[in-house]
Amino acid sequence: MKDVVEIKSLFRESEKYADQEIVVEGWVRTNRGSNKFGFIELNDGTFFKSVQVVYEAEFLDNFEEISKAPVAAALCVTGTFVLTPDAKQPFEIKAKNIVIEAGSEADYPLQKKRHSMEFLREIAHLRPRSNTFSAVFRVRSIVAYAIHKFFQENNFVYAHTPIITASDCEGAGEMFQITTLDLDNPPRTEDGEIDYSQDFFGKKASLTVSGQLEAEIFALAFKNVYTFGPTFRAENSNTARHASEFWMIEPEMAFADLTDDMDVAEAMIKYIINYVLENAPEEMEFFNKFMDKGLIERLQNIVNSDFERVTYTEAVEILQKSGEDFQYPVEWGIDLQTEHERYLTEKVYKKPIFVIDYPKEIKAFYMRLNDDGKTVAACDLLVPGVGEIIGGSQREERYDVLKARIEETGMTEEDYWWYMDLRKYGGVKHSGYGLGFERIIMYITGMSNIRDVLPFPRTPKTAEF
Amino acid sequence: MKDVVEIKSLFRESEKYADQEIVVEGWVRTNRGSNKFGFIELNDGTFFKSVQVVYEAEFLDNFEEISKAPVAAALCVTGTFVLTPDAKQPFEIKAKNIVIEAGSEADYPLQKKRHSMEFLREIAHLRPRSNTFSAVFRVRSIVAYAIHKFFQENNFVYAHTPIITASDCEGAGEMFQITTLDLDNPPRTEDGEIDYSQDFFGKKASLTVSGQLEAEIFALAFKNVYTFGPTFRAENSNTARHASEFWMIEPEMAFADLTDDMDVAEAMIKYIINYVLENAPEEMEFFNKFMDKGLIERLQNIVNSDFERVTYTEAVEILQKSGEDFQYPVEWGIDLQTEHERYLTEKVYKKPIFVIDYPKEIKAFYMRLNDDGKTVAACDLLVPGVGEIIGGSQREERYDVLKARIEETGMTEEDYWWYMDLRKYGGVKHSGYGLGFERIIMYITGMSNIRDVLPFPRTPKTAEF
Repeated sequence: MKDVVEIKSLFRESEKYADQEIVVEGWVRTNRGSNKFGFIELNDGTFFKSVQVVYEAEFLDNFEEISKAPVAAALCVTGTFVLTPDAKQPFEIKAKNIVIEAGSEADYPLQKKRHSMEFLREIAHLRPRSNTFSAVFRVRSIVAYAIHKFFQENNFVYAHTPIITASDCEGAGEMFQITTLDLDNPPRTEDGEIDYSQDFFGKKASLTVSGQLEAEIFALAFKNVYTFGPTFRAENSNTARHASEFWMIEPEMAFADLTDDMDVAEAMIKYIINYVLENAPEEMEFFNKFMDKGLIERLQNIVNSDFERVTYTEAVEILQKSGEDFQYPVEWGIDLQTEHERYLTEKVYKKPIFVIDYPKEIKAFYMRLNDDGKTVAACDLLVPGVGEIIGGSQREERYDVLKARIEETGMTEEDYWWYMDLRKYGGVKHSGYGLGFERIIMYITGMSNIRDVLPFPRTPKTAEF
Repeated sequence: MKDVVEIKSLFRESEKYADQEIVVEGWVRTNRGSNKFGFIELNDGTFFKSVQVVYEAEFLDNFEEISKAPVAAALCVTGTFVLTPDAKQPFEIKAKNIVIEAGSEADYPLQKKRHSMEFLREIAHLRPRSNTFSAVFRVRSIVAYAIHKFFQENNFVYAHTPIITASDCEGAGEMFQITTLDLDNPPRTEDGEIDYSQDFFGKKASLTVSGQLEAEIFALAFKNVYTFGPTFRAENSNTARHASEFWMIEPEMAFADLTDDMDVAEAMIKYIINYVLENAPEEMEFFNKFMDKGLIERLQNIVNSDFERVTYTEAVEILQKSGEDFQYPVEWGIDLQTEHERYLTEKVYKKPIFVIDYPKEIKAFYMRLNDDGKTVAACDLLVPGVGEIIGGSQREERYDVLKARIEETGMTEEDYWWYMDLRKYGGVKHSGYGLGFERIIMYITGMSNIRDVLPFPRTPKTAEF
């Protein structure tokens, strides 16, 4: 078998290949030339950039055929690798032999011109071949790995929490129902109700909106754990920031209070950004140039900042004294809006901030009640350019307080039997947070629509591919 | 804040802590003693093994309280770390101070005695604290990471293929329907049919059974890619090897034929096994002792073998000539049963084997037709002790051949418009395979029921937690 060199290696180890005969495979990005010679930009998917292949009629029997090789055709090129320090591109391949491994038809939709993002979404099966999406999805892969690497190197256990859930009580949003019943004629009980005892799981089942409650189970066994999996919202929101299917990371730490929680979140964010800047410099340069001019500077600023920590009560005071004309007026007890969050992180602190200790009324039942009886040990991480990117809390570990909170919010303790059990048996203090994976990808790439950082986005009325 | 040492560090870097005063936190596994002193096995979840804490009435004000600390209570222990080279355990902590951070009630279900696997499944919120499940789920996490590491270090792009799918045509098994319609009174068209245009995605939607078709999209952009995500089967099978929700890894490689495919699969399996033997030696020793006596030897044998490659036709001949009395008689054209697979890998070759070139009738439509017109370029990896663990193939990249195969199998080309498009535009040869994540975990741990390698298994009539 011939030894094919990945184009990534040509860029990363150019010297090694200088003046060597090499074989590369890849797809034609552009092909232009005269009747004597031509230039092909060949991309093999292993790297953001393409390599230039120079071919000449003098050396190729099939010059005619190659000069007509269309965009997207797959080639195998044998030739000499030549460093070209004085040219625009750092090197090129002088072809000795080119074989067309697969052709491409003339109506290939991804010709070299600017396409709208909307059009590219319609050809989601081809858009990963464009510069923008090749960069987005490679960065997505690299960030996913950075997240695993960060947690594994810190001895966190990766917990696969369930996707299908029969507990209707996660309480974090509208859920998709899953069923194998015949919708046309579902079985019914004597009372005429749908008979879910005959459904696949013997009861009503849905897609998870969060793995947190199950992650707490694992944290109280392994101390430090994280989830990384898909979650779902059946909300009919058509915004640039909401999708019906998205991925979440939910770390959970036992023997950890809110301060420990924030320490881990801050370290993780910095680790991810450093990792992607180091491991995808070409892609990041591209985003910085074409998507968001201040991107790299902003990310470097985050890596070099100590994140600020401010209470909700202090934040409200700052906003009230700011003299700003907010669309949503500020008073103690409101949920902070993006305009407030961005004002705080961009104008006041000019760096990421954690806002902590929110009014209990606007936060989830499982967050730990502070001694003031009014606030809970929650933390939201706000970053310049976006606003909230992480939401976390110390969890209520006190059986009686949790029981009271559950009753207060109109839920039923029995539905949470195993969650309550965790408080009975070694239910030590513990904390965690949730990071929306697509949110961090948007933040790192400067892409402004969540549909453009998901390979095949699912949104209301859209589940193509 | 006090500097808490993880119990893992005590085991991995014992010398460093010798005679030092340290602080550890963890949960009581056992607590036994007299009225003068006592011993606590303390486990903090960061490591398979526990550390022994020795406490004496002479040094502890709260000796009485500590001597009654029940199993599962959470403690913070300050004391001197002492190497004990002559004792059963390699070191112990002589306690100076012990604080109970969380109590535990007397009816804690996980007392130190043997419980049945069935009982432990009923307390899936507590079983990760047992030796067996602490080992299983830590190995699960380590293997997941090994898989990411293997692919990322080889420059594969991690592709998040969709969980929700509106194409009913993956054809790999029964699917769960997902909906937001009111099952009690669904909207209907004028014809009286369920009106799926009013469902969330504007059409009927299901949970994915495989990400392969979408992975092909990514492979034809990035060359080497892999998926790692949950997949679903709505099959009513109650076996020890089937779950309704499980995780799959599906690598896909462009410019790769069946041989390349097998090379990657073989390298991956060896990488994973090496990684887990190196990074979870205590857990593997436990499995080898209590679950499956020959486990480590069998795994090492796999790492040191060159996997054999044999055609289906040859395999059938070997089976026919074997003189074995199989339950299912062997003739060319049958699907190999586990008894056949295990005979081949355990008795004939005594190592892992790839069986290739299966009859097209028993394989999927997308597998590449061989020149004989009868077989397809499929490969199944069979391993001793289990049978099939990986299924892969070279994909049919020829538009006309694929079209014919789709028609032959009674499907509709239009349903596959984007899959066909891939064959029109640079659809070079490509190959891939699927690995059931739980299958490899069962293989590596020796656990015999898939319900015991999934944190919260989903099976017919079961979706608790």
